[in-house]
Amino acid sequence: MQHKYARRANALEPSEMRLILSSSERHELISFAGGLPASELFPIEELKVASQAVLTDHGAASLQYTSTAGYIPLRQAVMERMEAVGIRSNLQQVMITSGSQQAIDLTGRVFLDEGDTVICESPTYLAAINAFNAYHANIVDVEMDEDGMKMDALEKCLQQNPQAKFIYTIPDFQNPTGRTLKLERRKRMIELANQFDVLILEDNPYGAIRFSGTPIPPIKHFDTEGRVIYLSSFSKIFAPGLRLGWICAEEEILEKYAGFKESADMHSDGLAQRITAKYMELYDLDGHIETIKAVYLERCTTMLDCIDEYFPETISCNKPEGGLFIWAELPDSMNAGDIALKCMENNVAFVPGAPFYVRGAQKNTMRLNFSNSNPEQIKEGMKRIGEVLHRELDLVNTSSEELVN
Amino acid sequence: MQHKYARRANALEPSEMRLILSSSERHELISFAGGLPASELFPIEELKVASQAVLTDHGAASLQYTSTAGYIPLRQAVMERMEAVGIRSNLQQVMITSGSQQAIDLTGRVFLDEGDTVICESPTYLAAINAFNAYHANIVDVEMDEDGMKMDALEKCLQQNPQAKFIYTIPDFQNPTGRTLKLERRKRMIELANQFDVLILEDNPYGAIRFSGTPIPPIKHFDTEGRVIYLSSFSKIFAPGLRLGWICAEEEILEKYAGFKESADMHSDGLAQRITAKYMELYDLDGHIETIKAVYLERCTTMLDCIDEYFPETISCNKPEGGLFIWAELPDSMNAGDIALKCMENNVAFVPGAPFYVRGAQKNTMRLNFSNSNPEQIKEGMKRIGEVLHRELDLVNTSSEELVN
Repeated sequence: MQHKYARRANALEPSEMRLILSSSERHELISFAGGLPASELFPIEELKVASQAVLTDHGAASLQYTSTAGYIPLRQAVMERMEAVGIRSNLQQVMITSGSQQAIDLTGRVFLDEGDTVICESPTYLAAINAFNAYHANIVDVEMDEDGMKMDALEKCLQQNPQAKFIYTIPDFQNPTGRTLKLERRKRMIELANQFDVLILEDNPYGAIRFSGTPIPPIKHFDTEGRVIYLSSFSKIFAPGLRLGWICAEEEILEKYAGFKESADMHSDGLAQRITAKYMELYDLDGHIETIKAVYLERCTTMLDCIDEYFPETISCNKPEGGLFIWAELPDSMNAGDIALKCMENNVAFVPGAPFYVRGAQKNTMRLNFSNSNPEQIKEGMKRIGEVLHRELDLVNTSSEELVN
Repeated sequence: MQHKYARRANALEPSEMRLILSSSERHELISFAGGLPASELFPIEELKVASQAVLTDHGAASLQYTSTAGYIPLRQAVMERMEAVGIRSNLQQVMITSGSQQAIDLTGRVFLDEGDTVICESPTYLAAINAFNAYHANIVDVEMDEDGMKMDALEKCLQQNPQAKFIYTIPDFQNPTGRTLKLERRKRMIELANQFDVLILEDNPYGAIRFSGTPIPPIKHFDTEGRVIYLSSFSKIFAPGLRLGWICAEEEILEKYAGFKESADMHSDGLAQRITAKYMELYDLDGHIETIKAVYLERCTTMLDCIDEYFPETISCNKPEGGLFIWAELPDSMNAGDIALKCMENNVAFVPGAPFYVRGAQKNTMRLNFSNSNPEQIKEGMKRIGEVLHRELDLVNTSSEELVN
């Protein structure tokens, strides 16, 4: 039978993210495709202790329905973590979500009527674009450089879109580019948001994973008007499988989020919330993050070294100071999507950059994840990509020579 | 600052459900308000064993990102449970959701454009109304009697709304009324859905909790055209805190759900999914459900006896054969909302029926939950409500006598 879907469902395309998540389960493949943290670092033994303690001491409460805003000790632990990076909050300003993905989605529900404008970086996180599209948003992208979104371009964009609802930004080790918004631009973004009376959705799942360079306070640190809605997550610093993230925003705004979260899933898994809080009570999450950072630094460095060694010289990349991703640019004439398909045949995966663009996709870009492969896998996988790149580049050069001749 | 919310957010009212969930945490109160299962029955010791087994054997996989459709052994266990009640499915027709609340919400996302019509029972589940309203749906309600939605009224409604997207129904021990759609009406509903080319959203979280009478197959059992989207949940038969439900529908439809679930929360908690599957592998979920049913039968009977003993004779109620709720009707002149407030002062809570109506609320109705209080609490709580009812009824009678005199 023919189904009468909503318009948003007819527009739904097979998702690259879903392909990534499913391809990540193919064991013969070396995958730099997902945004997966290193599973071998998950604190499994500690979680066994924490889960037994929770079930023994508060079994019934952890398995019963609970409040939509989340388990209070977990929210308190979140407040402490944010205080440490320069964000002051109270309990009513913090809500637990089912991953920060849910927080992104709920932001659409709270703020977006059909046709409303969202401003984002170009390129930006694919699943945020999809979430905003489901609310029929008008997504306008702003150019980036190595230091993040360009503020002169943002100012122009705001002049052209004075009714924009919010600016969506991933300031630290952005997905997909690994770039970080520099300090002066953070201050300038707040100034512009104040001037144009627009909100900022600061999506910061990677900020805690800085393995080199100097930490920069989050944008919300500079917020004096309650204009920044700050999102973060336990996915990259603890365990993504538990689906726990959080929102920090003004109480009045969070009440709207809570109303819609109730329709979305009532509340996030109460057992997972208590286990996470218990883990933080019994163990040292910051110490665990130090371990993650040391491992990711090694992996990032290994991958950068492999780019030097195995990739053609015409390919450039950034040198991220944290996070999970390296962003590489091929010569203009090359299509990373074609390369990705050929790499899959060579049993190595990455994500081409094109889907991360709202418009004007740079098809010569690629996102490389270094967090979820060990140095040996990185060396072998990068060698395989390098082989494909050299082969393809030789073909391109040959055919252009033929054109010349 | 003044925020520019979406229209749906401006329409958001403080939720009765949230008040219920938060009031349920006040310990001095005897609450018949929530739809909470009995927490003392949660299989905590078994969950300790299951969680240790999962973390020991598959710790990394259970904590990593996983597929949007859900953990395959859990989906297989769901298929077996559905087969036992007469629903045949394959793996591609089953998806795990974050509670069936998420499945309801995703249904809105998949099918509802602004102004699209949804047909539901009057009264019906409040959080479903809220979820559909967030998509700006036109919700049309159909009269019920003791045997569920009236099919002549549904037929008229379909004639008047030939473009309706789906019929939302809770066939077994409905929330809020505890009523069950009788067999002939299930068959008739399928006939009408086929005739008018409309889908049926069969929300069945309570069906497994039948403690008396004869089981009736779900509506989907009679579905020959892939027209029924069947939802159910582990919340009432296992543990709501874990937020695990499922959808069974045609593969093509489920692909749309998966696309939007990805935007909503990527996937449901992978650890909770594996623990639940492991529990079903190691223990006897059906045996556990037998325990639940025996306890709920006693509680329901106790509450019905209390209505006989403590409530004024002019108050009628149904006698549910399962589920969590009794539905009582006060004399027309009484407002259950006022009674509920007075009962709160008397340290006993229930939910007035009015919010469960889309329109034409019957303000003299009340929903009484029996699952989450033991017989002693039920006796004491019902006595307290009875006191308030007698007092109020005396007042009403006195003032009408005064009017007459």
